[in-house]
Amino acid sequence: MYYIGIDLGGTNVAAGVTDKEGRLLGKASIPCPRGAEAIADAMAESVRLAVHEAELTLDQCGSVGVASPGTIDPEKGIVFHAFNLGLDHVPLAQMVSDRLGGIPTLLENDANAAALGEYVSGAGKGKNSLVAITLGTGLGSGAVLEGKLYTGFNYAAFESGHMVIRRGGRPCTCGRKGCWEAYASATGLIKSTREAMEAHHDSALWQLASTLEEVNGKTPFDAAQAGDTVAREVLAEYIEDLACGLANLINILQPEVLCVGGGICKQGENLMAPLRDALNREEFTKDAAHRCQVVVAELGNDAGIIGGAMLPLYR
Amino acid sequence: MYYIGIDLGGTNVAAGVTDKEGRLLGKASIPCPRGAEAIADAMAESVRLAVHEAELTLDQCGSVGVASPGTIDPEKGIVFHAFNLGLDHVPLAQMVSDRLGGIPTLLENDANAAALGEYVSGAGKGKNSLVAITLGTGLGSGAVLEGKLYTGFNYAAFESGHMVIRRGGRPCTCGRKGCWEAYASATGLIKSTREAMEAHHDSALWQLASTLEEVNGKTPFDAAQAGDTVAREVLAEYIEDLACGLANLINILQPEVLCVGGGICKQGENLMAPLRDALNREEFTKDAAHRCQVVVAELGNDAGIIGGAMLPLYR
Repeated sequence: MYYIGIDLGGTNVAAGVTDKEGRLLGKASIPCPRGAEAIADAMAESVRLAVHEAELTLDQCGSVGVASPGTIDPEKGIVFHAFNLGLDHVPLAQMVSDRLGGIPTLLENDANAAALGEYVSGAGKGKNSLVAITLGTGLGSGAVLEGKLYTGFNYAAFESGHMVIRRGGRPCTCGRKGCWEAYASATGLIKSTREAMEAHHDSALWQLASTLEEVNGKTPFDAAQAGDTVAREVLAEYIEDLACGLANLINILQPEVLCVGGGICKQGENLMAPLRDALNREEFTKDAAHRCQVVVAELGNDAGIIGGAMLPLYR
Repeated sequence: MYYIGIDLGGTNVAAGVTDKEGRLLGKASIPCPRGAEAIADAMAESVRLAVHEAELTLDQCGSVGVASPGTIDPEKGIVFHAFNLGLDHVPLAQMVSDRLGGIPTLLENDANAAALGEYVSGAGKGKNSLVAITLGTGLGSGAVLEGKLYTGFNYAAFESGHMVIRRGGRPCTCGRKGCWEAYASATGLIKSTREAMEAHHDSALWQLASTLEEVNGKTPFDAAQAGDTVAREVLAEYIEDLACGLANLINILQPEVLCVGGGICKQGENLMAPLRDALNREEFTKDAAHRCQVVVAELGNDAGIIGGAMLPLYR
């Protein structure tokens, strides 16, 4: 028996086929069109391509699991809102299933599916529990606790990005002030970098980005590497904010592994070494024999596909 | 089959006998002595009294579950540190078992046991999941997630009080700055009240407490009731801090019920009404059809006893 996963993204629809250990046997990616019907068509097409790539037939696959952005109802297989994709109350699971001969099709939030993927065959392989966060436009997160994908009683759990760490701080898209996401996402880092540039016109940051629009998540790391003090201060604060939320999650959940993904993680030890230093000061269990391991995510863009595929086994 | 629970407190050792639904059939409480051997003797004695009170015999009881303060190892049944009780690396489960004819004896952190008690026969009865917090000297918390006591891979989970909500804020006993406990515990409220009194010598708070030492968790509520503006401001900030951490926990975990216990909850709607208002603004799921219910804990001091008794069934 094989398992199909689909990662529905704003740019591409990617599908893959795995075995029951979550090993990816074949995958395919096609551009994501607009409109619910066209998206469902593209999803079905990506599945056919991936199954072919894996040298299998659809009959050999038991299920499809879809990792979708936005607000979803996993029980009913409905995407309530995924504004980037223009989806509004779309019964996506059923639409995909109908296009693939009625194959059982499950739907899950993309951050949850990515966490499951990392748990099954990435950073959390063989562990008791994993919390995954992704530093991107927002701060996505999901968790597998004691071998099961954790979604809360209403499927809305793990909006960890909307944990306030600086009460009264930066306004967040969710309406709160001082959310972790507002500081620790790539967007948060870019905002802090821009603020620092506006305050320091002599900073070397201006040599790497001649306008504020050109700043990206790499800019402050490059400037800090080149010795710029302002960039170093931006990063020191960024690390403190990131560590603050991670230590909060560890103090609450004590997962065996906490994995951090997203483009910023390409910085490797430039990010992880100071982050570990901060956690060594901040964690309640800093002196304990058994501590949560904080590591970089391993699967990159495949996490959602693999997690989607593994949904029927870990719900 | 019946179940025995012991709540080991700084003042009293309380034991109780329950049926498998966690209904308390008899209980007994005796003063807690000092020294490991004397404490184990008192625990065994409280069990004998409770069993007698329930009109049962020890043979009819299958297990003892101990709710202990401090740092513990539930697997080995050892209390590492419980400084208030003077316990240091004490194999308490074995010592209690030895005094009661070898009855299987389990050990758990008292906040976790209290959460389990509320889940089985209090505020979380019949629900999928519950997070419990207790506002006292510290801010204790525990959780039952999807029907199982959640302790993390290293048994150190749910130190929710040590979630930073105001980065760089008040120093906490754990070494961090700005922890939820430093603001939202009874101790935090007392500290805020004292700070306000020092800044406002004309406040009616001084009529209720003629020295700072006389301030307790009730003082600001009484003064606010009497119309004191300073006390009202203290409480408004207190509610915001309390709601901030609760909204964080809800956004992360989405338990079906979140129950709040401790002396401050005797304020009833004076506390809960403004708290619900704040959560209606702060929760990510504020507009969702299914929201976490925030309620007052129901079992008071019996939560630890009942949770201790229920340990073998919910681990």
